[in-house]
Amino acid sequence: MSVFMGLDIGGANTKVCWVEMQNGRVVRAEGESVYHEVWRDPEGLQGVLETFKYNREMGDDQTLQGVALTMTAELCDIFKSKSEGVRAILDLVEQVFRDIPLYVWTTRGVFVSPSQTREKPLDAAAANWLASATALARSPLVNHDEAAFLVDMGSTTTDILPLFQGEVVVKGRTDLERLLYGELVYTGVLRTQVQAIVDYVHIKGLPCKVTSEYFSITADVYRLLNLIREEDYDVATPDGAGRDIAACVQRLARVVASDPEEFGQNGVYALARFIQEKQLQQVLDAVWQLLSRLEQPWPKRLIMASQGSFLLREVARRLEWEAIPWWECIPGAKEGYALTAYAVAWLLAGQLEVN
Amino acid sequence: MSVFMGLDIGGANTKVCWVEMQNGRVVRAEGESVYHEVWRDPEGLQGVLETFKYNREMGDDQTLQGVALTMTAELCDIFKSKSEGVRAILDLVEQVFRDIPLYVWTTRGVFVSPSQTREKPLDAAAANWLASATALARSPLVNHDEAAFLVDMGSTTTDILPLFQGEVVVKGRTDLERLLYGELVYTGVLRTQVQAIVDYVHIKGLPCKVTSEYFSITADVYRLLNLIREEDYDVATPDGAGRDIAACVQRLARVVASDPEEFGQNGVYALARFIQEKQLQQVLDAVWQLLSRLEQPWPKRLIMASQGSFLLREVARRLEWEAIPWWECIPGAKEGYALTAYAVAWLLAGQLEVN
Repeated sequence: MSVFMGLDIGGANTKVCWVEMQNGRVVRAEGESVYHEVWRDPEGLQGVLETFKYNREMGDDQTLQGVALTMTAELCDIFKSKSEGVRAILDLVEQVFRDIPLYVWTTRGVFVSPSQTREKPLDAAAANWLASATALARSPLVNHDEAAFLVDMGSTTTDILPLFQGEVVVKGRTDLERLLYGELVYTGVLRTQVQAIVDYVHIKGLPCKVTSEYFSITADVYRLLNLIREEDYDVATPDGAGRDIAACVQRLARVVASDPEEFGQNGVYALARFIQEKQLQQVLDAVWQLLSRLEQPWPKRLIMASQGSFLLREVARRLEWEAIPWWECIPGAKEGYALTAYAVAWLLAGQLEVN
Repeated sequence: MSVFMGLDIGGANTKVCWVEMQNGRVVRAEGESVYHEVWRDPEGLQGVLETFKYNREMGDDQTLQGVALTMTAELCDIFKSKSEGVRAILDLVEQVFRDIPLYVWTTRGVFVSPSQTREKPLDAAAANWLASATALARSPLVNHDEAAFLVDMGSTTTDILPLFQGEVVVKGRTDLERLLYGELVYTGVLRTQVQAIVDYVHIKGLPCKVTSEYFSITADVYRLLNLIREEDYDVATPDGAGRDIAACVQRLARVVASDPEEFGQNGVYALARFIQEKQLQQVLDAVWQLLSRLEQPWPKRLIMASQGSFLLREVARRLEWEAIPWWECIPGAKEGYALTAYAVAWLLAGQLEVN
């Protein structure tokens, strides 16, 4: 049986998925994510990749047919440029998977070889969103005659990707273009600084401008509202303190140069809910921007991905669309897999098994 | 049996309710609203009031014990000042109900006599919101140990009034104070100019600043979205044209200096939905402002009043509160009655029947 590996190498998390195919169908899949900060220890990535390669037992009838690669770690500021970053990561991956064909996903929506990637490294930079969207657009589990929006809301950013008739109907390819067209929103449910969402809040019944220090992040807001668990808060805290509710409240109060005692329990709760509402607006605003150019039939479904799915459910409800988790939309996928790693593996499997 | 009449004299609509009491309980009630533009024909108000007085048949055992009056028509610009307006309207009402005791509701939350009103006319100006809120705060059908918000969203403005333990927990008395504290929001579902809600919209996938002409109002938005019927659109259209959907779409497109053909059916629909979302934000923003000063237990109920109730249901849902129509909250009230007219009648009945 043919096994295909998908790799999504981010700055902080390296995600992998294996897809096992038989007669053109997924018969088994697995997924894993390892926390590794590339900007601190780029060489250490090799060890992570070796674990992926050797720790998974392959049966006698199983062959690793190819590795599909996508990345965002090239943005880490240890690399002088994105091009240098792409090449450095590619070197590491090739070193580990020397004996396996390597396919690199690009913003042009196709896989290319390592040598092609070295020629045009920028094509391979930040192409991850397109892998996810392309896989879903092509999936037999998605009704192609209805438009759907894939919304992938992660710790830091949100991708909004219209799908229709097997195509990803986007206008932007680079992150700048995607920001311009509302296809990328720089807002997420963990790492986003509160002041990137609100420039005023309400305190004791009056509007109140916020400080502009790096005091508190969305993870504090959603911990306080009990929408994420302590173990979901897997990013650094702004003050280096804990992730318990009391510490989150303390950080949030600092956004208005205050302590929680100064405006009370209701006040802190109202503050967090206000910020949540405004973050929902950031996502909705971009959705309305995209809808304003819609030539397809009005969508009815929002495919949710990543940690922000609890907010995306509410976005879908406000749009009066059905909210569906992404793993119900691609054959063989399961909750807990990383969408992009699974997507590149599945796309490569589809390409190599058919051709 | 004792009958009490409540009068709410607005600039464009004169509302009346009759409440019939027996042994301290409402046994029957009626309500009516007459369209009469006070600013065009102040004297004509007399005819309206006479209809109220004489057209309702009174049984032999029925006596009109008192007329409770509240007003907002004093703001009409045919009056040199609000004080002059209050006195002029009071004169008219007294002329018609010469033989019936007249009680004027004030922003101090009590009824006063006509002579007291002439001394301090401003106390009687725009006291209507407090009558509604006081009636609901005192109603035996409202659980007084839980905080509730009365939200009255009319054609032009929205009142947000926290109720707790029989009291109306507001900070503002004048309209200026109420605007400052978020208790009055100048936004409504019919007459509000679209540009009072949004300063940009999305057209063909890009953000677009709006014109600042008086081109289109919220009634156009909600007709287009099929949230109000043509007969609900009972205010003047900005261009003097019709109230059919096509005319509404035409007006809405003008907000971005355009015709509907230029950005298509989906584009117009997306535009209307965007404006609806932003108007919801205006109301929610004020609710969060009030919640940020809350000392009472967190509310669980939103009591809805007036034409904007279809939006208030969504406001309540976002707050995770129960949405209840006001007429389920005051004894004897029914859908179709005007809240304020009923409230003053019921408050007066309570005062005179008990004392």
